[in-house]
Amino acid sequence: MNSSELSALRTASRELYALKSASGLLGWDQETFMPPKGGAARAESQAVLGTLLHQKQTADSLKALLDEAEAAGLSGRLSAREAALVREMRRDAELARKIPEELATELARATSLSQQAWAKARAEGRPADFYPWLRTMVELKRREADCLGYVETPYDALLDQFEPGARASAVRPVLEKLRDGLVPLLARILAKRASEPAFTPSWAGRTIPLDQQVAYNEALLRDMGFDLEAGRLDKSSHPFTQGMAPGDVRLTTRYREDDWLNAVFSTLHEGGHGLYEQGLPEAEWGTPLGEAASLSIHESQSRFWENRVGRSRAYWERALPLAQATFGSALDGATVDEVLRAINGVNPSFIRVEADEATYNLHILLRFQLEEALFSGALEVEGLSEAWNDGMERLLGIRPPDEARGFLQDVHWSCGLFGYFPTYTMGNLYAAQLAVAFERGQGSIDAKIRAGDLASMREWLREKIHKHGREFSAADLARRATGEELNPDYFLKYLEAKYLG
Amino acid sequence: MNSSELSALRTASRELYALKSASGLLGWDQETFMPPKGGAARAESQAVLGTLLHQKQTADSLKALLDEAEAAGLSGRLSAREAALVREMRRDAELARKIPEELATELARATSLSQQAWAKARAEGRPADFYPWLRTMVELKRREADCLGYVETPYDALLDQFEPGARASAVRPVLEKLRDGLVPLLARILAKRASEPAFTPSWAGRTIPLDQQVAYNEALLRDMGFDLEAGRLDKSSHPFTQGMAPGDVRLTTRYREDDWLNAVFSTLHEGGHGLYEQGLPEAEWGTPLGEAASLSIHESQSRFWENRVGRSRAYWERALPLAQATFGSALDGATVDEVLRAINGVNPSFIRVEADEATYNLHILLRFQLEEALFSGALEVEGLSEAWNDGMERLLGIRPPDEARGFLQDVHWSCGLFGYFPTYTMGNLYAAQLAVAFERGQGSIDAKIRAGDLASMREWLREKIHKHGREFSAADLARRATGEELNPDYFLKYLEAKYLG
Repeated sequence: MNSSELSALRTASRELYALKSASGLLGWDQETFMPPKGGAARAESQAVLGTLLHQKQTADSLKALLDEAEAAGLSGRLSAREAALVREMRRDAELARKIPEELATELARATSLSQQAWAKARAEGRPADFYPWLRTMVELKRREADCLGYVETPYDALLDQFEPGARASAVRPVLEKLRDGLVPLLARILAKRASEPAFTPSWAGRTIPLDQQVAYNEALLRDMGFDLEAGRLDKSSHPFTQGMAPGDVRLTTRYREDDWLNAVFSTLHEGGHGLYEQGLPEAEWGTPLGEAASLSIHESQSRFWENRVGRSRAYWERALPLAQATFGSALDGATVDEVLRAINGVNPSFIRVEADEATYNLHILLRFQLEEALFSGALEVEGLSEAWNDGMERLLGIRPPDEARGFLQDVHWSCGLFGYFPTYTMGNLYAAQLAVAFERGQGSIDAKIRAGDLASMREWLREKIHKHGREFSAADLARRATGEELNPDYFLKYLEAKYLG
Repeated sequence: MNSSELSALRTASRELYALKSASGLLGWDQETFMPPKGGAARAESQAVLGTLLHQKQTADSLKALLDEAEAAGLSGRLSAREAALVREMRRDAELARKIPEELATELARATSLSQQAWAKARAEGRPADFYPWLRTMVELKRREADCLGYVETPYDALLDQFEPGARASAVRPVLEKLRDGLVPLLARILAKRASEPAFTPSWAGRTIPLDQQVAYNEALLRDMGFDLEAGRLDKSSHPFTQGMAPGDVRLTTRYREDDWLNAVFSTLHEGGHGLYEQGLPEAEWGTPLGEAASLSIHESQSRFWENRVGRSRAYWERALPLAQATFGSALDGATVDEVLRAINGVNPSFIRVEADEATYNLHILLRFQLEEALFSGALEVEGLSEAWNDGMERLLGIRPPDEARGFLQDVHWSCGLFGYFPTYTMGNLYAAQLAVAFERGQGSIDAKIRAGDLASMREWLREKIHKHGREFSAADLARRATGEELNPDYFLKYLEAKYLG
């Protein structure tokens, strides 16, 4: 393969990514600044961009370029990085080509209607109204899985869309091993906590103006090394990160005047995602090599900063004085101990997104088990509510009083996002595993934080994770960074040290 | 032509406009919220969207649809509005098809480099450094004109890109008739003003915080009927309007804490553009019928609100008390008379964008004459600075001390925007002509303003101008609204009444 052919391939890729990036900006704008009446035109623009992207990704001209490149690769005329570029472009193109246009259209249409039906059913407390839509989504996604192909189970084809190369047969034992450690650990933590007196922080009842919170959250981002000349922090109702390019990464958070810590953890979480996006190789922008490896790796970055760094005593020894300096008298008398109690509670609860570090992954395990059962046929959608509630009782010892606090709480399934949930737990586990690997080579994280040296962690993650883009699979990347396979022990040890140490 | 063919045409058009709209959002974002380091990726995304747009616009499949439609039109099977749709889509497609890809690429490349050379030459005071680039731009635009075709002069082909159907031979006599009235009128105004004492407003030296100014400017927009649920007002260094759809119209303005009136007139100007964009027929969004008729018609809307409404005594009888209520003590003691003196000064000056109503159009005439001379070959670029300065002396009686205040002041020519300037004056003239037509049928504008009835003007403009989109040519649309051809007398009478009445 000569360099002009490789360059033609890169050009084709950059065209695809320019469309993705434009679509990303439209999506970001929709959640931040779009006026309310702009929705209809925006939906149409997005649909057109989506169609064009699909046409480009499935174009015969692209396939021909990839076929040539593969021949060159087989004869050893590509560097490792070039071969990775071709491999990942081929992967994306083949996945796109496997979905018949008719199925893609049906999926897009059903997803939109199903999401509306979910919102209505949840608001009105009529779960049965959602069942037909959920059944449709499961059927369509099973058809999609059949088109995509799989070795073991249809569910693997779905998981692969978010976590390339992952299989349920490998994820399941990890999540089950985690559960086997978590359930007794949780019982011990709760037993210890039961003897502690009730707690109200000294700042309860005081409010902190929005502009002061914005200044503080931006200062925290700067502190962790997020470049605000190459990104932004805005408000949205659901925090998210949209990376357009390493030089243009948009984060959002949400502020509550009566709860200043609420925004902080969204900001640190999205800041972790943001550092990943800013650390991707700029020269490869517009190709798969300039993209994140997988959802679990992305989540490992957000959780590393949100939890391992942001919920530590060392961090608040730095961050509380800054908060007090920024917020004036509102935090008079606040102590680091208070902040730590406020942010490190443990309490089995119904809603995943409000769950603490010790219970969160049991929420995920439940969803994973139910997804597997739905796709294997072991569970019909009509039995979902009961299976959910039974699972909550089994794993967390509590039973949801209604479906809004039960299986209707998440939007994912209504959008056909089956196979997405496990990546959240994998991200938590990778975060803990990366932290241990960091400390093995670089020394104590707490000591680094106390020394004001967040840069050493950011640079280590950049070197081990960010700069590789999609060159390696998530599992390979994590193995190279940590020296071993995904292993829940590090996370369990972290929790034990934190809550029982 | 059956309805499914027409529907295929509309679908093709909506695809084009979704790309245009996405590109519009990227452009708006670049001037408002994009982080500084996002520029390189943004330029690439825009280039890709531009290429895709050009490919879609020149696709043979689109041409085939248009050929069928034209045949149907010839046999009378299209409604007037359908025929207009086909006519305007054909116009756009044919213009796009006439430019060879090689020329389009060369123009895009040269424009970018030329604009940089202009900025550097202006900053360093080295006009000669810009001459080679200007010569290149003139040559490329002459080649473009040759590709586009014209009946009388190459310049017409360029003018037609901004003002469809306009010809220099029709515009020239209008601008010259305007000059013949303006020059003596200006002399009379200046003579009258010479006897007036110097003026400093009572608020001089006081500053008004940004957030209060934002609230005030948004209130003025609401007052004129701009729907902030279907649009926004943001900050940018150069005010502009970006309409994505009637439900999503973005305005920008610029604020100076030491000059609260500065933002107001940018806001009213862009607000006039914004009302036009919000008033375009929503059902035709995504087709030429859902677009503005021309640049001059667009400018007529902005000038109507900025000048005819916004610089009137009646308006400030309403707007000053609101300003005083919003700004607290900063405007204590301010009077309507003071505001009017501050906003209605007349003074020959070097910079077009700072010129007053009485001198502004002489700046435009100068540019029009020089553009014609450059394209007819009567003027070489090397002679431009002298020709400019001579023209300023002839028309306004002042000679620029340097080229930054002379021919280097505007970005337009460096971007190849020849034929654009005359639409500014045509907009001013149409605005005055529309105001008289409004008063003929609906009664005094000042009385409407005093009665708090801005809605009657907005609705009249919506009915006469906005709702038609591009169904009629600019000249036809203005004729239907005002009963006659473009006529500078109304503007001259307006100035005379305002300044000498």
